[in-house]
Amino acid sequence: MKVSAATELAIRGLTELAMHFGEGPITLDTICAGRDLPKQYLTKIFSSLTRAGLIRPVRGKHGGYMLARDPKQVSLLEVVEAVQGPLWINLCTHEPPQCDQEDCPLRSVWCELQQHIREKLSSVTLADAAAPVAEVREC
Amino acid sequence: MKVSAATELAIRGLTELAMHFGEGPITLDTICAGRDLPKQYLTKIFSSLTRAGLIRPVRGKHGGYMLARDPKQVSLLEVVEAVQGPLWINLCTHEPPQCDQEDCPLRSVWCELQQHIREKLSSVTLADAAAPVAEVREC
Repeated sequence: MKVSAATELAIRGLTELAMHFGEGPITLDTICAGRDLPKQYLTKIFSSLTRAGLIRPVRGKHGGYMLARDPKQVSLLEVVEAVQGPLWINLCTHEPPQCDQEDCPLRSVWCELQQHIREKLSSVTLADAAAPVAEVREC
Repeated sequence: MKVSAATELAIRGLTELAMHFGEGPITLDTICAGRDLPKQYLTKIFSSLTRAGLIRPVRGKHGGYMLARDPKQVSLLEVVEAVQGPLWINLCTHEPPQCDQEDCPLRSVWCELQQHIREKLSSVTLADAAAPVAEVREC
């Protein structure tokens, strides 16, 4: 039950792109400098995000990366799944299922948890991630 | 965001012990036969559960394993954390925190998710896992 380090880096990089949405491509150097991110690792992660259609690389002198869509239309769930693959909390929620115990009383527990996580991550966008915070909340 | 394969095996093994709570120790062979579990792997997992104080090994001719407490008093969260370690959904919910960006608008998202997962897993016990199911629910 972890958001991977790669996903956290992806979110930080994408947030930087979201803050500059509409301003044209931004170089990896600028993204990394703005968020204190490791360039080599982010290059790899941005390849995954490009393949997933979340960002677009732009070649040339003023090239770089830009979001493929409006940040209001890109959910955290899409980012998590682009980096970590489909979100299955465990074997019984896997599609297709990898557990054949049909009468398991825990199935509803895992299903509810997975659904809650998916709904929450679907409801938050890159625009939210790029918005200023009114109040810092502790866990 | 995964319940590991080891945790799933742990839950299945513990559920077998929960179903026979109060009947004395049960051998690993019986547990594995009842739930179709791989003995070598379960031996390793049961060592972790013993160290975490969730089960007690009993030596001797009629030895085996038994739950250290009433299954109604052992939550899924305890089992997950005994096998996978403390449940942190990501770096910002880690204790101590491993991200120093204090004004991050996503902090409340991760905190809410982590809290929901912890509450849900705390509310379900091994007794629930061992109870018969009235209705099979699909995800």
